[in-house]
This record gives sequence, C-alpha cells and structure tokens, in this order.
Amino acid sequence: MKMTLERPKLISLAAGFTDRASLPVREVGEILHEILFQPKVARSALQYGSTTGDETLRRLTMERLQAGDGLLQDEAGAYSPRQLLITHGSQQLLYLLTECLCDPGDIILVEDPTYFVFLGIVQSHGLRCRGLRLQSDGLDLARLEAVLGSLKKSGGLARVKMLFMVSYFQNPSGVTTSLEKKRAALELLRSYESAAGHPIYLIEDAAYRDLRFAGDDVPSALAVPGFGDRVIYAGTYSKPFATGIRVGYGRLPESLFTVINRVKGNHDFGTSNLLQQVLRQGLSSGRYDQHLALLRRRYRKKARVMVEALQEHFPKNIQWEAPRGGLYVWARLPRALSAGTKSRLFQKALSKDVLYVPGELCYAPDATRRLPRNEMRLSFGSAGETEIRTGIARLGQVLRTL
Amino acid sequence: MKMTLERPKLISLAAGFTDRASLPVREVGEILHEILFQPKVARSALQYGSTTGDETLRRLTMERLQAGDGLLQDEAGAYSPRQLLITHGSQQLLYLLTECLCDPGDIILVEDPTYFVFLGIVQSHGLRCRGLRLQSDGLDLARLEAVLGSLKKSGGLARVKMLFMVSYFQNPSGVTTSLEKKRAALELLRSYESAAGHPIYLIEDAAYRDLRFAGDDVPSALAVPGFGDRVIYAGTYSKPFATGIRVGYGRLPESLFTVINRVKGNHDFGTSNLLQQVLRQGLSSGRYDQHLALLRRRYRKKARVMVEALQEHFPKNIQWEAPRGGLYVWARLPRALSAGTKSRLFQKALSKDVLYVPGELCYAPDATRRLPRNEMRLSFGSAGETEIRTGIARLGQVLRTL
Repeated sequence: MKMTLERPKLISLAAGFTDRASLPVREVGEILHEILFQPKVARSALQYGSTTGDETLRRLTMERLQAGDGLLQDEAGAYSPRQLLITHGSQQLLYLLTECLCDPGDIILVEDPTYFVFLGIVQSHGLRCRGLRLQSDGLDLARLEAVLGSLKKSGGLARVKMLFMVSYFQNPSGVTTSLEKKRAALELLRSYESAAGHPIYLIEDAAYRDLRFAGDDVPSALAVPGFGDRVIYAGTYSKPFATGIRVGYGRLPESLFTVINRVKGNHDFGTSNLLQQVLRQGLSSGRYDQHLALLRRRYRKKARVMVEALQEHFPKNIQWEAPRGGLYVWARLPRALSAGTKSRLFQKALSKDVLYVPGELCYAPDATRRLPRNEMRLSFGSAGETEIRTGIARLGQVLRTL
Repeated sequence: MKMTLERPKLISLAAGFTDRASLPVREVGEILHEILFQPKVARSALQYGSTTGDETLRRLTMERLQAGDGLLQDEAGAYSPRQLLITHGSQQLLYLLTECLCDPGDIILVEDPTYFVFLGIVQSHGLRCRGLRLQSDGLDLARLEAVLGSLKKSGGLARVKMLFMVSYFQNPSGVTTSLEKKRAALELLRSYESAAGHPIYLIEDAAYRDLRFAGDDVPSALAVPGFGDRVIYAGTYSKPFATGIRVGYGRLPESLFTVINRVKGNHDFGTSNLLQQVLRQGLSSGRYDQHLALLRRRYRKKARVMVEALQEHFPKNIQWEAPRGGLYVWARLPRALSAGTKSRLFQKALSKDVLYVPGELCYAPDATRRLPRNEMRLSFGSAGETEIRTGIARLGQVLRTL
C-alpha cells in the first residue's frame, strides 16, 4: 500500500483490495435511504445493538449458510442462529478465537501456504505453527496424519488446539477444499483428541465462498454429520459486498459461544448496528444477491483477462491454474528461481513498476519443513483489465530475462 | 436489557443507552446522501481504509481536541494527528491498551467508583485493581499517594502499569476531574516511575466530554506540559452522535503508537471506512456540532426533570448532586441501607417496575478498602421525561417505606 502511494505508476497485483468499479454504491444508497426514511427503523439502526448481533441478520445468515450447504432440514442443529455471532469483519472472529482458545506456545495447524494476515494474529499471541501441504482439492491428509502422529510421539499434541483452513478459493493458492477432505480432516482430528486431552477445532474460513464464478458450490464442514461441536465457520459480508462495510460472522460450537461472545463484549460490546442493518436490509431485499451476481461476472471477466495474459506472457515452465473464484492466481516458478522480497526477480519487477506478493510470506514459520521461495500471489481483485494485462506482460518480460 | 424486554412496563433508569428521540436521523441521512451521490467519494467510503484510520478524520479530531483544550499552539507536539488511532468505539481502545500494556497479575489504579464495563476487560486479562476514592473534583490525591507508597513498600509497584480515569461527568458518579488534579496525578505517577522501573500511564477516558450542558469545559491531561509521553486520551463519537455508528479514537504517546496500531491491525485491520466517512463529513460540514447543541439542550432538560423529581420524591437524607453533563446521577443512601442486587430495596423497586444500577457493581474488587453498598446510579440517558418522573417517584416511595 505504501509503495502504491509512493509510486503512482506502479501496477499492484499484490493488494488484497476488491474491485473498485463494482462497489455497490447505488445499492447501499437505496438501502440507507430505506433505513433512514422510516423514523422507527432509523432510530434502531443509530442506537446500540446487542453484543451478539441483530437477530434478523443472524437468522438470515444461518438460513443462507444452510441453503448454501444444500440441506433442507437441520437435523443435527448445526445451523441454529443462536450459535451465530456477528463480528467487525471476519478478522475479528479469527482474533477472538485465537485469543480465547490458545495459550502462548500452543500449536496451530495451518495450510501451506496460508492467509498471511492470520499469521500476524498467531505471532502476536506467541503461537507456533505446523504447515500442511495443499493439494488441488485441499490439504494433504497424509501430511496431516504424519504431523499429528509426530506431535503425539514428541508429547506436543497437548498443545494443538486447532486446524485453520481457508476452504474456498484459498488466499493465496486459489485451492478449494472438497467436502471429503473436510470430513477426513475432522475424523483425523477427533481420533487424536483423547491423546491431546481436549477438543481440536476446525476453523473453516470461508471468506471467498461467495466470490465463486465457475463450478459448483461445495458444502461447508457444517454439513459433515456429527461434527457440529468441532466446526467453527467464519464468514464475511465485507469482501463480497463492500469492504468499507465491515460485517463478518462466526458460527460457533455451543460450548464456545458464551466465552467468545463475552470476550467480544469486552472488545467492543457489539458491531456497529448501522452496518448490520445495511446487510440485513441488503439480504432481505435481494440486493445483496443481485450485486453478487454482478460481482461474479466482473471477477470472472478479470480472471479471464489475467489467465489470457499469463498464457501469452509467462514462460511455459511456470505453473499456475485458472481460478474458479476468489481474487488470486498462484504461480509456481522453477525451483531455482526465488521470488522473495530480496530476490532479483522481485527487484526487477519493481523497477518495471509491477508488484506481486512473494509466496514465502504466505508460509507459517515451521522449521520441520522446507520453505518454498519460488512462488508468487497475483491478484486480479483491485487492478483494472488494462492494468492486469500490462502488469502480467511486464512480469512475463522480467521472468523471461531471468 | 434482558429485564426490560421481559417486563414491558419496567422503567429502566439503569441502561447506559442514549436518548432515542434525539438520534441524528436527518443529519446522518443527509451526510450519507452526500457521500453516496459523489461516485468517487462513495467508492472510497465503501472500500477498505487503513488500520490507523482516515487521515482527515484524524486531523479534524486532533484539531477539535486541541481547540477544546484551549491551546492555540501545540508547542509540545501533544496534539499531532500522527498519534491518533481511530477505533471501533472507544471500548476497543481500552481493550487494546489493557492487552498491550498489561500482563496477568498486573495492577491498574481505578477510580472508586469506576466505569463497570472497563472492569470486564480488567477481569478478562487477569488483572488486579486498586480503588481510589473520588472527591467532587476528581480522585483523592492523598489516597493515590498512600496506595503508591504502600505498593512501593510491598514490592507491588513493578506491577502498576496505569491509572484509569473517566475524567468528564464520570460514569457512574458524574464527577469531573479538575486540570489541577490531572496535573498532580501525573506528577505523582512520574515520581514513582523509577521505583516501578517503567512508565506508569494515565488513561483519560473522555467519553462524556461532549455531553456537557452546564459549566465550562476543562482541559484534558494533554494540556499539562511535559507529560505528552504519559497521557493516553480516549474519546468517542458514538455517544455524542449515534451509538449505532461506532467510531472512537485514542491519542497515544509516540512510543506506544506502533504497537497498539499493529495489534489493532490483528484485531480487525481498521475500523469500517463508511462509518469513518460519516463522522468526517459530520465534523467538516458542521452537522456534528449542530446536533451536539441540540443534544445538550435535550439532556439538560432531562437532567432537570430528574433533579426536580429527586427533590420532590427522595428523602432528604439521600445525597446526590445535580449533573452538569453526561447521563447519570449518583445517589448515596444512608450507610445502613443496602442498594445491592439482593437488597430489599432493589427487589422492592423491581416489584414497582423500576430499575437502577446498584452502586456496588461500579467498584473494582480491592480487598484493601471497604466496598460501599449504599449507592445507586440513575440514568436520564434513554428514559423519556415522563418515565423519569414516574420512575423517580416510584423509587422515592420505596425508599420512604424502607
């Protein structure tokens, strides 16, 4: 961000910002008009709400989640609105979870690569990580089992509190985790619980789920029967609607709800009620879904532009996959070619006014495995089509010379 | 809140909610119209901002603060916008401060009585408190010195990290701290720093400063020359504008800014930009101040209604003072008469459908002093004029029978 400000000609394929041109200006204007021109509704929106969040927004959110998972009946009670907490962006939920469930020195299982902002939370709480290699359909279960097994042997299992998974169009890799892998991961975690001496939770961060522009939706881990007491589902309305309106949510196991809710009360005693009313009205009026359809078309188009540019300009020995949702393309260079911040590649790219996220920043510190340095995250989120084309062309040129 | 929902006839003089009828519905509607009908402004407002907050809002806030303190020149650099952090309500700032500055077992000096929601934060971090008796112009300096002295002797001084003070129309007592007492407190704290081995900060929580309806403003502790590196000033736009729009702020010593800002980044990487733009526009257009003038008239009126009702209905041996700002009247009963949640008084009041906050809830746990049980907090914030009259009349009746 700082670089972007200092160098106006710089094309940033690094920022996690969303598309500017498609922000729902008209929709938010209409919604706010509806809220503010009904005096009773307006006064509610401008007054404190509860710590937990608006009742209707919680219900609409859980109905949406259940419908997305394709379940007509909630037999196991996994989708009860009583277990939903509204937060100031889903980031706040991730913070609350880490704060409440972990002590310094505890171990969190994360994907390799993973959402790097989460690593900031992890670091600030003095936690350790174990990285789990990602495959094209989610984490490598053999590696998960090997890590759990080795921690059991070394006596470290008692420190393992959770597995953090970004399950849809993952930031940064673009990978979506299959339902089968979610189920298998939950079963594996449970099989180690008696040795651990406590529950091991699965945090499913579904931040990009709504930004799907190809393929079918995949049910969340909540759809796996019998694991409702172990699944934490983190969602957000910020990225798929307006990032300036920070409303996220978390579906929590019943046993965790009270404590997380109380600590949220200490943090801020509740997310801004006005923002919640905007989302509530957006969902119930259908405007949220209408805008989502537009947004998906927009990102589908920008992703295609990036894919075409990659095909044209990137050398053939660089691996990447066409995204089906989210904001990112993950590119893997030949092993000898470093993409790190101090690499010739990064510096040369910068001198050509193009910026990417070095893949190494997306790996948790974990000395038990080799840290790849030959990857990069390319975002089509905030850049326009021309910028994407030009940026990838410049990057391709640098890659060819190296 | 729960009781209020369950018993619709209940008059709550307990809630810390603000006045419903005077919420700035028209003003917020106009501001949002202005923001959303300028496409460029709208898109900025609906996009992520920075963790630190909107630059213009930070500047306007510091200019306001400096002007409020009556200083034309900022010679000591105490009012630099670079030291201002925008937060999701001032509660978030209090949380961040406690989280970043304190370890479990540390000691916080608080007023007797104090803001009880702060005690929730304190408890959740495993901190201890020492209570400092309030006088009509702020804390009892002799008690502050005695507490610091006894902690020095007992070896506890190394655990003292901060003094928390609600300096304007204090919640719950209504007391405003004089500038002289702020200066004396800062000097006393500094004189114990070498024995403590670290800085001891003064947190000045000015949540009610803008809600002044009688008397002159008092400068903040930032106006005391030479202590800018020890004063943390917490302010909010929620209470004096709209509690549904949660925007608070903190002016931090330079040495603390980076760490608090980073932890804020981990919490939520920035307060909702849309909310910040509402306040920015509210301040720069003058609407915030226009509305504040209206709000002050409204609370002045409601405070007078409560004072008149107290004069008419409360027995003469109950002590209270007419408020000059804020939302509360603090009443002290004869010592033998308990006002606690299990007292006959509280139960009888409840049976007459009137609710107050028992004063004992506003005291930190501190076994070194006696906990008074004969006080109550009465709020004229959310109740209407008729409710205030009826509520106080009912309470007066119960008090007379006891």
